[in-house]
Amino acid sequence: MNTIGYSLKLTTFGESHGAAIGGIIDGCPSRLKLDFDFIDSELRRRKTAQTATTSQRKESDQIEWLSGLLDGVTLGTPIAFMVRNEDAKSEDYEVLKDVYRPSHADFTYEQKYGIRDWRGGGRASARTTLPIVVAGAIAKQILLEKNIKVVAEVAYMGNAEQAQKEGDTVGGIVECHIIGAPAGLGEPMFGKLSAELAHAMFSLPAVKGFEVGDGFALAKMKGSEANDTFINKDGKITTQTNHSGGIQGGITNGNDVVFRVAFKPIPSLAMLQQTVNKAGEPCQISIEGRHDVCALPRAVVLVEALAAMVTVDMLFLKK
Amino acid sequence: MNTIGYSLKLTTFGESHGAAIGGIIDGCPSRLKLDFDFIDSELRRRKTAQTATTSQRKESDQIEWLSGLLDGVTLGTPIAFMVRNEDAKSEDYEVLKDVYRPSHADFTYEQKYGIRDWRGGGRASARTTLPIVVAGAIAKQILLEKNIKVVAEVAYMGNAEQAQKEGDTVGGIVECHIIGAPAGLGEPMFGKLSAELAHAMFSLPAVKGFEVGDGFALAKMKGSEANDTFINKDGKITTQTNHSGGIQGGITNGNDVVFRVAFKPIPSLAMLQQTVNKAGEPCQISIEGRHDVCALPRAVVLVEALAAMVTVDMLFLKK
Amino acid sequence: MNTIGYSLKLTTFGESHGAAIGGIIDGCPSRLKLDFDFIDSELRRRKTAQTATTSQRKESDQIEWLSGLLDGVTLGTPIAFMVRNEDAKSEDYEVLKDVYRPSHADFTYEQKYGIRDWRGGGRASARTTLPIVVAGAIAKQILLEKNIKVVAEVAYMGNAEQAQKEGDTVGGIVECHIIGAPAGLGEPMFGKLSAELAHAMFSLPAVKGFEVGDGFALAKMKGSEANDTFINKDGKITTQTNHSGGIQGGITNGNDVVFRVAFKPIPSLAMLQQTVNKAGEPCQISIEGRHDVCALPRAVVLVEALAAMVTVDMLFLKK
Amino acid sequence: MNTIGYSLKLTTFGESHGAAIGGIIDGCPSRLKLDFDFIDSELRRRKTAQTATTSQRKESDQIEWLSGLLDGVTLGTPIAFMVRNEDAKSEDYEVLKDVYRPSHADFTYEQKYGIRDWRGGGRASARTTLPIVVAGAIAKQILLEKNIKVVAEVAYMGNAEQAQKEGDTVGGIVECHIIGAPAGLGEPMFGKLSAELAHAMFSLPAVKGFEVGDGFALAKMKGSEANDTFINKDGKITTQTNHSGGIQGGITNGNDVVFRVAFKPIPSLAMLQQTVNKAGEPCQISIEGRHDVCALPRAVVLVEALAAMVTVDMLFLKK
Repeated sequence: MNTIGYSLKLTTFGESHGAAIGGIIDGCPSRLKLDFDFIDSELRRRKTAQTATTSQRKESDQIEWLSGLLDGVTLGTPIAFMVRNEDAKSEDYEVLKDVYRPSHADFTYEQKYGIRDWRGGGRASARTTLPIVVAGAIAKQILLEKNIKVVAEVAYMGNAEQAQKEGDTVGGIVECHIIGAPAGLGEPMFGKLSAELAHAMFSLPAVKGFEVGDGFALAKMKGSEANDTFINKDGKITTQTNHSGGIQGGITNGNDVVFRVAFKPIPSLAMLQQTVNKAGEPCQISIEGRHDVCALPRAVVLVEALAAMVTVDMLFLKK
Repeated sequence: MNTIGYSLKLTTFGESHGAAIGGIIDGCPSRLKLDFDFIDSELRRRKTAQTATTSQRKESDQIEWLSGLLDGVTLGTPIAFMVRNEDAKSEDYEVLKDVYRPSHADFTYEQKYGIRDWRGGGRASARTTLPIVVAGAIAKQILLEKNIKVVAEVAYMGNAEQAQKEGDTVGGIVECHIIGAPAGLGEPMFGKLSAELAHAMFSLPAVKGFEVGDGFALAKMKGSEANDTFINKDGKITTQTNHSGGIQGGITNGNDVVFRVAFKPIPSLAMLQQTVNKAGEPCQISIEGRHDVCALPRAVVLVEALAAMVTVDMLFLKK
Repeated sequence: MNTIGYSLKLTTFGESHGAAIGGIIDGCPSRLKLDFDFIDSELRRRKTAQTATTSQRKESDQIEWLSGLLDGVTLGTPIAFMVRNEDAKSEDYEVLKDVYRPSHADFTYEQKYGIRDWRGGGRASARTTLPIVVAGAIAKQILLEKNIKVVAEVAYMGNAEQAQKEGDTVGGIVECHIIGAPAGLGEPMFGKLSAELAHAMFSLPAVKGFEVGDGFALAKMKGSEANDTFINKDGKITTQTNHSGGIQGGITNGNDVVFRVAFKPIPSLAMLQQTVNKAGEPCQISIEGRHDVCALPRAVVLVEALAAMVTVDMLFLKK
Repeated sequence: MNTIGYSLKLTTFGESHGAAIGGIIDGCPSRLKLDFDFIDSELRRRKTAQTATTSQRKESDQIEWLSGLLDGVTLGTPIAFMVRNEDAKSEDYEVLKDVYRPSHADFTYEQKYGIRDWRGGGRASARTTLPIVVAGAIAKQILLEKNIKVVAEVAYMGNAEQAQKEGDTVGGIVECHIIGAPAGLGEPMFGKLSAELAHAMFSLPAVKGFEVGDGFALAKMKGSEANDTFINKDGKITTQTNHSGGIQGGITNGNDVVFRVAFKPIPSLAMLQQTVNKAGEPCQISIEGRHDVCALPRAVVLVEALAAMVTVDMLFLKK
């Protein structure tokens, strides 16, 4: 269950403070000259996000390419890559070893596995999404050849600067557009593009909501308001509106695919919080580590990356 | 892509006006005495929903069990079942053969496959969800033995009676609770319970939004408001609130799992709508067939069914 | 585990004396006009095999097509089909209900599931391979368009007529050639064409051996004898010999793919055999039912069918 | 297609002369204290095999553990590991860049991918099986707790010393026993233990044949000779003989699982061989690199490793 994708697959590994974070990309076409500058720039988009509102952890995030390439060109074989966890200050977390941070995965991992890597959130750390950026950058490169672009932006974000002063955090919403995807992508019955995108987005930490097109607002419309009328525009069949977000019956109709992802506030608070420890005893914690006030700036590139991966996957599945 | 599930799998088949609708359930434990009365009652919940607001199509929905059973007891082998499409009036749809109904899947299926079954929506018809009710009923029976219940209800529905008068339709929201699920269900990284539920729900026709716990509202909260404080209640670790909807890090924490699903209004309108035909020529249609004004009453049992299937699947995956 | 294939998938269901035997084919391209006469003729090849050496069970084997077709043309949606079990004389097997037939799956199914369908071998019956013939016939039709043929024949068969007189049975070997497959089919590391063929063939009842090219004989050759020298034949690179059976590194080299499948003798003997019953008490049985003396004549079309399915699957996977 | 297993999965990566060889193990239970000494000893078994008959390439084969462990104990998360390719003398292979070595995968990889890593066989190199030994060692550790052992040995090997003098190579046969596996392992219809083992073994380089129990010899027996009579031995139902190799109907019967794997001779010959180059021009090569005369000594631990992985996988699938 650490693999995503059908024909373009990413399997990831790594804990926040383990030796390395990385992944294996299987199904990438051969003879693609990887654009390493672009991959690095995508990783920087994730790092540049590290301003006042985001974590202070310093990681060079230097990718080591382990396989699948000859002189930077894909061989068609698995592309393995990793990034060392250089700046891992596990001692910062020692105090949290036996305490369950509220709305974190400490308790649930322990319930599931009977053991957890308490250092920096372990496998549940946001750092484990780094391989998604790498795979997403390669997916974007594949899409670019087909004139398909994936562009996301922060659609809503709480008042981060104010929250930071209060030792608090904020959440927000990312909106994403897949532009130029041909009609006919997505697979009925259980491989609808909307379902695949939803699955992918809920794989990101802190995601609590997902909607396509007008989403939840559609639930309050009448059919006559929600329907997208077909028109003939310069000899091409398209729709007058895009309430459906480019997907009907789970399959693209040629319009922009539009969706929104809701992120809850980061649960690590600098302020004092009540909780319990392993023994069930009440205690208080304030999380002093290097944490974001808001995940949104980082999340944009992650949403794009997964959207690009899903789009490539559906393109490859379409015969 | 017509299969859902990892260890409890359902593969479905059928078009609205083809010979039959059905499925194969693979991975059901052996020696389970199926409760056929319960399965029928679940199918009736779907039919009872057929009041003023829902479709007039009469289907006896009599299940034929084809395999996997000996004297009503599961053998551990695939359980195949089907329901004949008795009351299929294809001629009603003849007029729609070359016309794209707005916000239906007519156009997208044709783009994808170069052919579509125009009779009653074909594979994209809501009727194709019937096998989900059957598999869901069996999943509920499995859950019952473990004291897990899945209960959904309509949380919001537009004014259906009014819409019907106007030849219009309405959408709505279904809220579902999974009660009694043990802590530790769900798989990181790409098998989070939230991701699996999202994937499953977006497999239903007309679904455009999904949220877990406080969902989109969490995006506008501060961390101090959104976090679920751990407490010791009678010697058991639990949380004071349930903003997370019972899922943290993709894994259950022992609370009720709570989620909501947004359905767009049914796109088949009795009123006149503008559209185009295959040739791209503008035309008008009003859909006179036997259609629901609102999918919500039917959707409740479908949401429950998929939630039950996902829960069983995750239970079986947990070692 | 009742599904085979990656991009062309067959999921089968059915017990020998249950209501029906059938399957769902998922991933068949749309707009293929099915050649029903050919499918029937393939089923007849399986039935024609029912001479003196094979079973006397009479089944009309009339296929009911349940979905995925419009006027005999594939829609791209799942193709479900079934055959009723008309001539099931379960009473013939009543005496075997509590007895373990030697080298049959009675004992192992009961160990696995704690229950078994004792009527005619249940899920382990050779009858359950019928859906493979159907899917194989469709696969052959797809291959025919690409000028690829799959041809098998009995390479060795024991003296069936003599064995029958003695109440005994015989085994044999089927050899199969895939002719015209392009170079480049098969996937490293764990999707080698040889591995996929081996997996498929061992899914057939009674298969105990599989070899590609010169197979086991290669183990006794020297490299200089076993190697296939590359030559330039009329401007095309090919090999002088085909010891490899058309597969090198798991991938086709453009030569005929050649493999052999070893079938053990049918374990149902008319002669008296010693065994034990459920209680572990010694007893004797002679199996009077309608059974083959040799599975080989039937097996030829099964081997071809699976080989065709695997070949189509690999063709679809090749980007 | 670089992944093997259903519930215990291994995904491998790496080319012979790339940066590293490694893999990700997903599905290993948590709280297992890995026996690193045993893993190393298994790797040494592969290296110790490097005597006169095997390759002279020196690799320290020092495993770097990248994730999934805390103080040597499994976390239940993916276990990633790798081995650097230290002693890669790519220049040895420069001469082979444009030449197709007979019965190697050079030609087929190039046909498939339009590009190949010509350095040391690339992805098709026997070196890429190293991750299998690692995963197999962990699988054996899991089996040991259940008193299941996997033991293979060379059943036949050509005259290696003589072949080496002649610049030739030899093949052979490995026989493997899975001892102590409970009855009931293996999944009908397409997940038979025999099919899974066959699939796994054909994933090894140079494998050309696979047989279970008496295998191909069964094809020439009569049923009365081939059948395994059930007996009651000290109150336990077992069989008098084991012609079936412990598998009936694809499911274990509690006897030793016995199978044999045929390996063709290594195709890299020191003697002069005729072949063609990329341009299709005839040429001669003698392969001077560090190559085995016989793969058999190395193959034993590989056969055991895959057998152990398949057995664990089937154990985990059995509910």
